[in-house]
Amino acid sequence: MIKHLAILAPGLLGSSVARAARERGQAGRITVWARRPEVREALRGQPWVDAVAETPIAAVAEASLVVLAAPVDRIIALDQEIAPGLAAGAIVTDVGSVKGPICAAAAQHPRPPGACFIGSHPMAGSEKTGWEHGLSGLFEQRVCFVTPAENTPGAALLLLENFWRALGAKVVVAAPAKHDEIVAHISHLPQAVATSLACTLGNQDGDWRHLAGNGLRDTTRIAAGDATMWVEIFQQNRDAVLQALTRQEEEFSAFRLALERSDWAAIRARLERGKAWRDGFRT
Amino acid sequence: MIKHLAILAPGLLGSSVARAARERGQAGRITVWARRPEVREALRGQPWVDAVAETPIAAVAEASLVVLAAPVDRIIALDQEIAPGLAAGAIVTDVGSVKGPICAAAAQHPRPPGACFIGSHPMAGSEKTGWEHGLSGLFEQRVCFVTPAENTPGAALLLLENFWRALGAKVVVAAPAKHDEIVAHISHLPQAVATSLACTLGNQDGDWRHLAGNGLRDTTRIAAGDATMWVEIFQQNRDAVLQALTRQEEEFSAFRLALERSDWAAIRARLERGKAWRDGFRT
Repeated sequence: MIKHLAILAPGLLGSSVARAARERGQAGRITVWARRPEVREALRGQPWVDAVAETPIAAVAEASLVVLAAPVDRIIALDQEIAPGLAAGAIVTDVGSVKGPICAAAAQHPRPPGACFIGSHPMAGSEKTGWEHGLSGLFEQRVCFVTPAENTPGAALLLLENFWRALGAKVVVAAPAKHDEIVAHISHLPQAVATSLACTLGNQDGDWRHLAGNGLRDTTRIAAGDATMWVEIFQQNRDAVLQALTRQEEEFSAFRLALERSDWAAIRARLERGKAWRDGFRT
Repeated sequence: MIKHLAILAPGLLGSSVARAARERGQAGRITVWARRPEVREALRGQPWVDAVAETPIAAVAEASLVVLAAPVDRIIALDQEIAPGLAAGAIVTDVGSVKGPICAAAAQHPRPPGACFIGSHPMAGSEKTGWEHGLSGLFEQRVCFVTPAENTPGAALLLLENFWRALGAKVVVAAPAKHDEIVAHISHLPQAVATSLACTLGNQDGDWRHLAGNGLRDTTRIAAGDATMWVEIFQQNRDAVLQALTRQEEEFSAFRLALERSDWAAIRARLERGKAWRDGFRT
């Protein structure tokens, strides 16, 4: 259990962390801070909020665990601002979708003795955004990456792992760069594929989409994601995503070329390879 | 209501047509034929089967509507075999995913007076195959293309449209070539995209898939489809699919190039364009 949990800039994920920690008795006290005054006002009186701070520094002063729930491009600046004001031994984490740049920058921020930054990335979300839509069960059975640095104290890492597990998540520990390579392939590449497919179809007759079965619906579902959030993710993880996109481009071009050559053995081999991979998903 | 319905080579779709027609009182008598003797034996006694014929010709002799439910690469040969043995005025249709080659070939088969072929393509299916898995509700609220030729009698077209509507389908009438262009984009292209994405990920660490959220799961779901069925579809609709694949390749390459150039305005425009298209789906 965390004695004092601080959530900075709670949106969907941050408020879900607070709700889950409160419901599961994992935080003694929960302090939040939000940038906009009207949000701070609205947060007062939420059952998962004990105190609303006026500044980030004030929010973290006595916290043993700080969660930076801001969008991915504002996490570094927020960590820089709060790092000197942390309590000794405090752990700071975030919920950003990219970890390399954030963890590298955070390692340069001066902190009090024993305080440290360890990245987190809970693979949970919703088409909805905003703290109002947070859910205490959002992390149940979902993967949560925890990305320590080489010099992260073992006790701090264990505490953060146990916190996410207590919220229901399946914790996966990976170095920040490995995390970014993995999510470039399993999350950011599918987004680029779904967006491109939606764009290709968007260039055709708009009524065609209403004739489609569930296949097109499923294959393009994530194309409806928030554009601003995804631009930030692609900015932050550009290099790893570029590699994943290049690999996909090669696979797709090879499929097209096989079709052009009427090479049915090659088409069959690709269909079977894709099926074997997809059938290997745990249900 | 159809006086006498014949279903040739019933699999998932064919048996679903028979079940739906029986349940909704749309067929007076239902005769089936299957190629394998053990399947013919198993079909005897099904509540949606009144008679099992030993040959295709015997099955269609007295039928007013014949449904060729064979795989897409065997429909033409089956139609050629039964066409001369049809009753006068009989309508033949199929349930194949590609319509141009089938409708063109069927137009050349000699038939008795008033008999005709009109293609059908119900956009319904299942990961399962085989007549045992047919469902009487399979066509409810699903699109069913009906693809007449220029000289198709209006009364025959209307009868076929009404038959599919009575089974719960939303009927869309289109020329065979237009149908093939549409499904190349809304069905066959998504299959090639999902298969290629699955292949790209299959080249990486196999454990990564277990870390993915629902996005990757949805985007690749149809990659688990039957390889044999899809090879036949790609063979039959090669030219239209090739055009759709080329368009997708251009969109995806442009996305990759924008990322390579860190052209965030272009990335944002693509994300927004894809989102606008996907948000336009009727729920």
